[in-house]
Amino acid sequence: MIDPDRYIEMKRKRINRALQNALPAAGPPVVIKAMRSSLEAGGKRLRPVLTLAAADTFGVDEHEVIEVACAIEMVHTYSLIHDDLPAMDDSALRRGKPTCHRVFGEAVAILAGDALLTHAFEVLARYGRKEFCAQKAVRIIDELAKAAGVKGMLGGQILDLEAEGKELTAEQIEKIYILKTGTMLKAAVRCGAIAAGASESELVILTRFASSLGTAFQIVDDLLDIEGTAEELGKPVGSDSTHGKATYPAVFGCREASLKAEQFYRQAVEGLDELERPTELLCSLADRIVFRKK
Amino acid sequence: MIDPDRYIEMKRKRINRALQNALPAAGPPVVIKAMRSSLEAGGKRLRPVLTLAAADTFGVDEHEVIEVACAIEMVHTYSLIHDDLPAMDDSALRRGKPTCHRVFGEAVAILAGDALLTHAFEVLARYGRKEFCAQKAVRIIDELAKAAGVKGMLGGQILDLEAEGKELTAEQIEKIYILKTGTMLKAAVRCGAIAAGASESELVILTRFASSLGTAFQIVDDLLDIEGTAEELGKPVGSDSTHGKATYPAVFGCREASLKAEQFYRQAVEGLDELERPTELLCSLADRIVFRKK
Repeated sequence: MIDPDRYIEMKRKRINRALQNALPAAGPPVVIKAMRSSLEAGGKRLRPVLTLAAADTFGVDEHEVIEVACAIEMVHTYSLIHDDLPAMDDSALRRGKPTCHRVFGEAVAILAGDALLTHAFEVLARYGRKEFCAQKAVRIIDELAKAAGVKGMLGGQILDLEAEGKELTAEQIEKIYILKTGTMLKAAVRCGAIAAGASESELVILTRFASSLGTAFQIVDDLLDIEGTAEELGKPVGSDSTHGKATYPAVFGCREASLKAEQFYRQAVEGLDELERPTELLCSLADRIVFRKK
Repeated sequence: MIDPDRYIEMKRKRINRALQNALPAAGPPVVIKAMRSSLEAGGKRLRPVLTLAAADTFGVDEHEVIEVACAIEMVHTYSLIHDDLPAMDDSALRRGKPTCHRVFGEAVAILAGDALLTHAFEVLARYGRKEFCAQKAVRIIDELAKAAGVKGMLGGQILDLEAEGKELTAEQIEKIYILKTGTMLKAAVRCGAIAAGASESELVILTRFASSLGTAFQIVDDLLDIEGTAEELGKPVGSDSTHGKATYPAVFGCREASLKAEQFYRQAVEGLDELERPTELLCSLADRIVFRKK
């Protein structure tokens, strides 16, 4: 029996150590400090944990894919720094702490985000220079760049900005969700599996799993934003709705949104049946991710 | 006899066509438009021309390295967009046209820069998926990420921001120059050579060439900023000095700076003697780059 909480805790520590070591050893102190403090701001490490778990599912040890996991968390953290900027969401708090630009100023925050994005690819190049890893690295770089780019996360951020204050349909909201959160979550799972040597048909199954999980995760995030307390969340409650952002709960109400989340969760987990590998780990992680309290 | 002006013109056209085709085919129109218009704003294409010329020196045709050249120009263009932002240099004009954030707003400009940086690595991954290119691609990604990162261009931008209004020594100015311009120029030459299969000792020679050329280029840039007319340059004359930025001419005077530029140029060209390859092309390009009028 896998205890998902223990697994997450263990991997999170491993990832935090690796992130420390993966940061540039030299460079102007202020930008390194901004990168480090944003990375250390206590994120859930959901994406890199999924990368390690996907590799685990194929019997591949964490030390073989840890660079890949780190790169994904760096890209995620860069996106948070830039999303929080005054010109974007203008957020004062993130994970309960002042946002990067509030601490270091706007110029350094822009550059710290740029630096994390750039450094993620340096970390993947380092992975690719290990024996037999070049071709896998190239595929992973392709996946990550696509997931983070205009057809993925970055495209979602643009749509999100454009949607502020507008009425959206369920389809439009879902599209933003998929782009902003789903594509990176999918990439986290796929990159772990690619590094572990998964076949194309296995990747298809894992992609469906990650897509459904990503949407469920985002709906729960929005529900917690409404229902949670500021203390539990580390950001002002209702901060999404104050920006007039379209969210599932805002459009359908909390009860309907909650049912939707459960439906996506079931889709995610049931799809794994087709995978001829042990799926208990991924299923129990999905459970913890969707039915969380913060 | 190679006519450098004709060579540059020919390669520039080729690069412009390739950049058009290399842009993402889909995505939110506003960000694609911002990426495209920044890329099309009529840059000299100095870096990608050097990439093609480096490959040429090893007898490798442009079509084998054109993705590498495009990726380098994308990273360069991203850095211009972000450097121009209100939180950074707050520039209204670039290459004679309104800067990205003046046309598209700050949020889109930040995202367009992010998107170009991200897309550069997607383009390199695409290159790496061609036959026999994975290992070269991984090395090139490593080079480019390092050159663009905190130990390179981005680090230089931080030092430049920190230097505003301060008195700097010649060594400090040179360090900023090397980081901001030199590392990317060096990467442009090295990546072309790596893609063309250059040996380690050949790379050492080319690196020295590119380093000296980069410094000469930047000094000339600063001199033109003081001496040129706004029309020739496409940006307000003296725009560097109005920000109190440290430049060679500001510290040493124009005459001394001009001598310095010539000295670095000679260093660049003379070092090429050791290369057992035809060096006429690189020498004549260096000549055109340093002794230019705009």
